[in-house]
Amino acid sequence: MRAATIHAPFDVRLSEVPDPVIEKPTDAVVKIVAGCICGSDLWPYRGENAITPGSRIGHEMVGLVEEIGADVRTVRPGDFVVVPFVASDGTCPNCLAGYQSVCQNIVGIGGGQHDGGQGEYARIPWADGTLVATPEVPDDELVPSLLTLSDVMGTGWHAARSARVRAGDTVVVVGDGAVGLCGVLAAVRMGAERVVALSRHEPRQKIARDFGATHIVAERGDAARDAILELTDGVGADAVLECVGTDQSFRTAFAIARAGATVGFVGIPHGVEVPARTMFSRNIGLAGGVAPTRAYLPELMKDVLTGAIEPGLVFDQELPLADVADGYKSMHERRAIKTLLRP
Amino acid sequence: MRAATIHAPFDVRLSEVPDPVIEKPTDAVVKIVAGCICGSDLWPYRGENAITPGSRIGHEMVGLVEEIGADVRTVRPGDFVVVPFVASDGTCPNCLAGYQSVCQNIVGIGGGQHDGGQGEYARIPWADGTLVATPEVPDDELVPSLLTLSDVMGTGWHAARSARVRAGDTVVVVGDGAVGLCGVLAAVRMGAERVVALSRHEPRQKIARDFGATHIVAERGDAARDAILELTDGVGADAVLECVGTDQSFRTAFAIARAGATVGFVGIPHGVEVPARTMFSRNIGLAGGVAPTRAYLPELMKDVLTGAIEPGLVFDQELPLADVADGYKSMHERRAIKTLLRP
Repeated sequence: MRAATIHAPFDVRLSEVPDPVIEKPTDAVVKIVAGCICGSDLWPYRGENAITPGSRIGHEMVGLVEEIGADVRTVRPGDFVVVPFVASDGTCPNCLAGYQSVCQNIVGIGGGQHDGGQGEYARIPWADGTLVATPEVPDDELVPSLLTLSDVMGTGWHAARSARVRAGDTVVVVGDGAVGLCGVLAAVRMGAERVVALSRHEPRQKIARDFGATHIVAERGDAARDAILELTDGVGADAVLECVGTDQSFRTAFAIARAGATVGFVGIPHGVEVPARTMFSRNIGLAGGVAPTRAYLPELMKDVLTGAIEPGLVFDQELPLADVADGYKSMHERRAIKTLLRP
Repeated sequence: MRAATIHAPFDVRLSEVPDPVIEKPTDAVVKIVAGCICGSDLWPYRGENAITPGSRIGHEMVGLVEEIGADVRTVRPGDFVVVPFVASDGTCPNCLAGYQSVCQNIVGIGGGQHDGGQGEYARIPWADGTLVATPEVPDDELVPSLLTLSDVMGTGWHAARSARVRAGDTVVVVGDGAVGLCGVLAAVRMGAERVVALSRHEPRQKIARDFGATHIVAERGDAARDAILELTDGVGADAVLECVGTDQSFRTAFAIARAGATVGFVGIPHGVEVPARTMFSRNIGLAGGVAPTRAYLPELMKDVLTGAIEPGLVFDQELPLADVADGYKSMHERRAIKTLLRP
C-alpha cells in the first residue's frame, strides 16, 4: 500500500510500504477514508524534531474496519470508526480513569514503522480500547468533522475541560491553529458567555467567529494582556486555553487569567518556564497535557452526528493522498490551516 | 503596647509600639487572645528574606474585638474573632470568587508597621471582609484549634481543595510541617481512604497519625517515590499536597502523582522549576497558592466548634508573649513544630 514517509526536513513522500495485517488478536486493520496533517507533524517536517529517514508520519484518521483480530469485540468489519491519535488498551487504571493518553500500554499511531493516518490502510493495536464506531456509515459531508475527533477537536475540548470552563464564563483562547479554533468551539459548546480568540490572521478569525467567538483580539504579548484586562474590568479571564506551547504564549496565558482561574494547556511545551511564583500569588492553576481524545469521543461524536458542532470547518484544504507533500508545504507556509487527505 | 519586632537575623524582640487605634471606618481593633509563629516567619528570622530593622512580625491571631470603626457591621466589641493572615475587603471580584488572598485591596497582617499577631492588640483593616466571629466566646481549650484557622489549617485545607481530594482517594502529603500536618487532617476530613504522610520525624509522625494518616513514609526523593508507587500498584496517588515549596519537594510531588491527578501546592515556591513536560505527558495539574483562609473559615470554624477536627494539636509549645524570642529559637532549631504565644 501507499503511505506517507519522512526522509529529511521538508522531504515527505508517498511510499510503497507493507500492507498491514493482523499481528495480535487485539488488532484491527482499518481502510482509511480520510486522514490529515497535524500542526505537530510540522515539527519533524521543519527539522525541529529528530527524523529517522523512512519513518511513517501522521496520526489522525477515520476509516472502515477491514479486518479484526480474534479478541476484538466492539467493532466489526464494515464499521466506520474514528481512530484516536494513540492506541490505548482501555483496561489499565489510567484508561479507566479517563486518561487513555497515558495508557500503561500505549502504542503510538504513525511514527517509526507504526501505520499512521496518511496512508491507505492502518493496523490499529488495542482496537477495543481505541476505536469508536459511528452507529452507521455516515454521510460523506460529516467525514471532516468526524476526522477532527481523532485529535484536534478532542484536544481543543481537553484544553477547555482542563481549564474548567463553565457556563457563563469569559474564556480566552491563546493560539489560532486548528486546536485553538477547536478550543473556541469547545468553550462555546460548554456555555461560555464570552469567548475571546487571540488571532491576527483573518481566515482564522473568521473560523473562530463561525465557531462562536464573541471577541477577536489581534494584539500579542503585553498589548493582548491589556486588551483582555480592559474587557474584564481588570479582573482577567475565568478560564484560559493555552494552545501553542511557547514561553511567550504561557506568559500571556498567565497574565490574563483571573485569580483562581486555571490555564488549560494542550500545546506541547517548548522551552516553557512555568511562572510558579505568579501561580502561587494569584492562585492560578495549570492543567492539561496530551489529550485523552478517546475519552471524549462518544460525547463529541454525538455532537457531530446531531449537528451540534461542526469542527470540520478547520479544514480549509483537501488533497488526494498523492499530494501529501503539497499538503505539508502549504501548512508549513501557512497557506492552509489544516489539510485533509483522501487516499 | 508590646509587640514582636525583628531587627536582624535571629534577633526578634518584644518592643514597645504605638497602641493601635481605629484609622478608617472599616477598621477594628482586636485584643489578642493568642498568636503564634509561622514557618514562614522563620525566613526573615534566618535572614533568608530581607529585613527592615524594627518591622513587626507575625500574622496569625485570634482575639476579642475591642473597638470598631463606624462602617463595621458584622462584628462588634466583645466578639471572639479569628483573623485571617491577610485583610480582604470582601467585596471585590476576587473576594466574591472566594480568593480573598488575592483581594484587589489586600492589606497584610504584620510586617512593616502593620500590627501583627505577636502582640497585645492589632488594628485589622477591612474588618467586615476579614474577621469571622464565633457564635459565643469559646472555651479556652478551643483557642489553639481556632487559632490554626487564621493560617495553617486553612492553608492545609487549601492544599487539599486545590489537589481536588475526593472521598475514597489515596492522598500523599509532602511536608510534615504544621501546614502539611493540617493537610493530612484536611484530606482525612474530605473522606480520603488512604492518607500518606512523608515524614521522618517521630513527633510529627505521631501528629499525622492522630490526624488520621493511614501510612507514614520516612524515605525521601527516589525512595519516597518508589514507596508510593509500590503502595499504589505503580499507578501513583490520586492527589498530592505539596506543603514545602522546594524544587526537591516539587519533584517528589510530580513523581508520585497518578495520571490526571493534581498537585495542590501551598508552600511558597523557592527555586522551583515546574516540570511542564512531565505535567504534559502525564496530565498532572498544579493548583494552589496563597490560601484564602477567609473563604474556608465558616466551614472550618464549625468543624472546630463541633469537635469534628482538632487542628490545634499542631501546637507543641506554648509560651508567654514575653518569651517570643525563645519561641523563634525553638522552632528554628526544630525543637518545636509550632509555638503558640499568649499575651
